[in-house]
Amino acid sequence: MSHTIEHKDKLLARARRLRGQVEAIERALASEAGCEKVMHLLASARAAMAGLMAEVVEDHVQTHLVDREKHPDAFNTEAADHLLSVIRTYLK
Amino acid sequence: MSHTIEHKDKLLARARRLRGQVEAIERALASEAGCEKVMHLLASARAAMAGLMAEVVEDHVQTHLVDREKHPDAFNTEAADHLLSVIRTYLK
Amino acid sequence: MSHTIEHKDKLLARARRLRGQVEAIERALASEAGCEKVMHLLASARAAMAGLMAEVVEDHVQTHLVDREKHPDAFNTEAADHLLSVIRTYLK
Amino acid sequence: MSHTIEHKDKLLARARRLRGQVEAIERALASEAGCEKVMHLLASARAAMAGLMAEVVEDHVQTHLVDREKHPDAFNTEAADHLLSVIRTYLK
Repeated sequence: MSHTIEHKDKLLARARRLRGQVEAIERALASEAGCEKVMHLLASARAAMAGLMAEVVEDHVQTHLVDREKHPDAFNTEAADHLLSVIRTYLK
Repeated sequence: MSHTIEHKDKLLARARRLRGQVEAIERALASEAGCEKVMHLLASARAAMAGLMAEVVEDHVQTHLVDREKHPDAFNTEAADHLLSVIRTYLK
Repeated sequence: MSHTIEHKDKLLARARRLRGQVEAIERALASEAGCEKVMHLLASARAAMAGLMAEVVEDHVQTHLVDREKHPDAFNTEAADHLLSVIRTYLK
Repeated sequence: MSHTIEHKDKLLARARRLRGQVEAIERALASEAGCEKVMHLLASARAAMAGLMAEVVEDHVQTHLVDREKHPDAFNTEAADHLLSVIRTYLK
């Protein structure tokens, strides 16, 4: 992904947060925390992962489906917005 | 969706099958079939619905993100294929 | 499901609403409505189906895992509530 | 989860594998790997997380819904198997 530095940093921060959540799951399992706790940690990590996926898919749609420097008018941004709104609903 | 007649018929056939599955759920509930039966009917209907969604999303991506008559070279079909393969994984 | 009449009626009403939503999808496809419309109808129908599934699973957990007339004290309702809260998160 | 040591080790091994997958996502983002690569790593990590969740939910259902030492005959294992088979379908 050859995107802006700023955006890359945002994605990396999300991935690091997700790693922290997975490490919390490991610690909970190692310390024999209750199933309830582990299930809730897993549900949160899953939501974080879905959020990261939604961002990466959005990136991909916005950046790679059309080379916008070469074809500045070809990309139907309204159709892309509809697609991304549906994808976000399904990733939740 | 102003697509080919053939494709429209395929989508309609899927939607009709899905309606049949939902009617089977209704009948199972009305006749007080076991929870097991109802849960399995629901799981099948959900898979059918996900399959229909995957087809409509594919249609949308292939047909609406770029007007290919006006911009015949703008659409990156390889990037679109990657997107659709990921979407199908998530819709399962 | 040998549950109360009232509850059966509630599930049936949900299933009928879901059928109505699937019929709307069929009509939208038949009348060549836009992909956007069809995708949004599908997303709504999917949420309705997930809601029905959540109710049936809850029923199943509450009614069938333990015969409560025979074993009135055996069922851990708190553990069941944790389970159902996690399942609802995943069915959304 | 006061389960067998063996089972705890199995869950921990799964959690560690999942952490490895999340670390690979971080590295891919840091090294500006393509969106495709990141999306596929995310899809695999999501499947691994769903598998871990399925195991923990199974554990919870088998171990906590009924105290089987106190109530050895109360738990309907067939009904539980139906529930778990449906949950596994949804977690995929």
